[in-house]
Amino acid sequence: MIRAVIVAVGREILRGRIQDTNSWTLARRLTGLGYEVMRTVACDDDRPTIAREIRRAIEDGASLILTTGGLGPTDDDLTLQALAEATGRPLVLDQEARRMVDSRYAALHRAGAVEAAGMTRAREKMAWIPGGARPLPNPVGTAPGVWLEEGGTTVVALPGVPGEMAAILEGSVLPALASRQPGAVYVERRITTEARDESEVAPVLRRIARDVPEVFLKSHPTRFGADVRLQVFASTWAGDRTVAEERVARALALLREALGEAPPGR
Amino acid sequence: MIRAVIVAVGREILRGRIQDTNSWTLARRLTGLGYEVMRTVACDDDRPTIAREIRRAIEDGASLILTTGGLGPTDDDLTLQALAEATGRPLVLDQEARRMVDSRYAALHRAGAVEAAGMTRAREKMAWIPGGARPLPNPVGTAPGVWLEEGGTTVVALPGVPGEMAAILEGSVLPALASRQPGAVYVERRITTEARDESEVAPVLRRIARDVPEVFLKSHPTRFGADVRLQVFASTWAGDRTVAEERVARALALLREALGEAPPGR
Repeated sequence: MIRAVIVAVGREILRGRIQDTNSWTLARRLTGLGYEVMRTVACDDDRPTIAREIRRAIEDGASLILTTGGLGPTDDDLTLQALAEATGRPLVLDQEARRMVDSRYAALHRAGAVEAAGMTRAREKMAWIPGGARPLPNPVGTAPGVWLEEGGTTVVALPGVPGEMAAILEGSVLPALASRQPGAVYVERRITTEARDESEVAPVLRRIARDVPEVFLKSHPTRFGADVRLQVFASTWAGDRTVAEERVARALALLREALGEAPPGR
Repeated sequence: MIRAVIVAVGREILRGRIQDTNSWTLARRLTGLGYEVMRTVACDDDRPTIAREIRRAIEDGASLILTTGGLGPTDDDLTLQALAEATGRPLVLDQEARRMVDSRYAALHRAGAVEAAGMTRAREKMAWIPGGARPLPNPVGTAPGVWLEEGGTTVVALPGVPGEMAAILEGSVLPALASRQPGAVYVERRITTEARDESEVAPVLRRIARDVPEVFLKSHPTRFGADVRLQVFASTWAGDRTVAEERVARALALLREALGEAPPGR
């Protein structure tokens, strides 16, 4: 399975001014493709800080790093400079990226959304990307995404505005990642048990985990009308969906036998 | 100003099954107290992984580390073991923590929420905390929070269930942190400008930043009815609220002059 790290760049997240929803979206979509997200981190708009987080992800063995934020035209947008620093590359003016930026501003101008078309220094900044990287079209905003291969690690930089992030993710990134076939399938099922007390469920989960060691079991209290019941999630990775489904089904059967299953809709 | 790192422990976050709202709550509340959140990270329910994140936060110079998740009675709850490992301490059965756990189960039993009161191995697990740490009462759930001083760093471990996290945060943690008076006040104000094009605003922000170098300026596009306008956030830290407010007011005046201010409610 391929391990991934998500890096959300933006001081507004650290100040609690906005909630970072991008990392959640990315975690869900990557998991669905069979990637293992090993860490998500939110960091400041600061070049050395962003570079350090990228280097740490590489050191930790991530084969895929997705960043969000810091691609725009203003001076606090520093992700590409940091990526260049972390990978020891120069920033170069990419002609394809420049054409993307130019054509987006032409379209925005036609739509009356900006005063003038044409290139300026601030707009051109978004086309300076690390050497060897390639730009990804942004159908919603103006800053292209960036795809970079560095040794065994793929780094993909996406904008921070959720609609732009999602558009590049769905349009360019996920299709390319899906074609890599990580060779692992993640399957997760849950059961709402009759149990109400996590401390009583603990030894039961320990016993079941010995019978199905490949399955990760995790309990969560959940409200069920006025009542609390424990849900148990059983999840596994396998090279094959059938194997994964069978393992999880076996765990669910053992859970049902040991803890009971709450009837639906109670 | 005191630098803080937030560590959210929980595989369910990395799988995208739940959205981590705790880090957002903590970032907002810590910022309001004058702390600088330098990083938030979400990591897996794995002892060495959690320990590594705690050590990294210490290495990065955090004076305050807040963790969420991994305090419960089940075997996948590993935060306290990891905290003991990261700080080179043994886990010890804390008698005050044991009394807290015991009295919570007695109360839950009286309320009919659990079958039996009394201590079990799984319940007692929540009272094994790193040596030298002290437990924080959990008025909502069963697992106490944990407060640990390690060299110049304070580590506070909170439960992952948001209601329990918030109860211990508001009841025990924020009052103690507030009394430390970090000696820094964070002030942030925003202005909705007449500008619509971030690439045109970039050189203006650069010029204003030279006049008020202590103020961090950041632009964000925002929808304004059918229209897009740029908001600019001006923020600063200062030892004194008046100084901070004056700096930010000066930046806002310059922004208003250069970019115009959109009338409210348009």
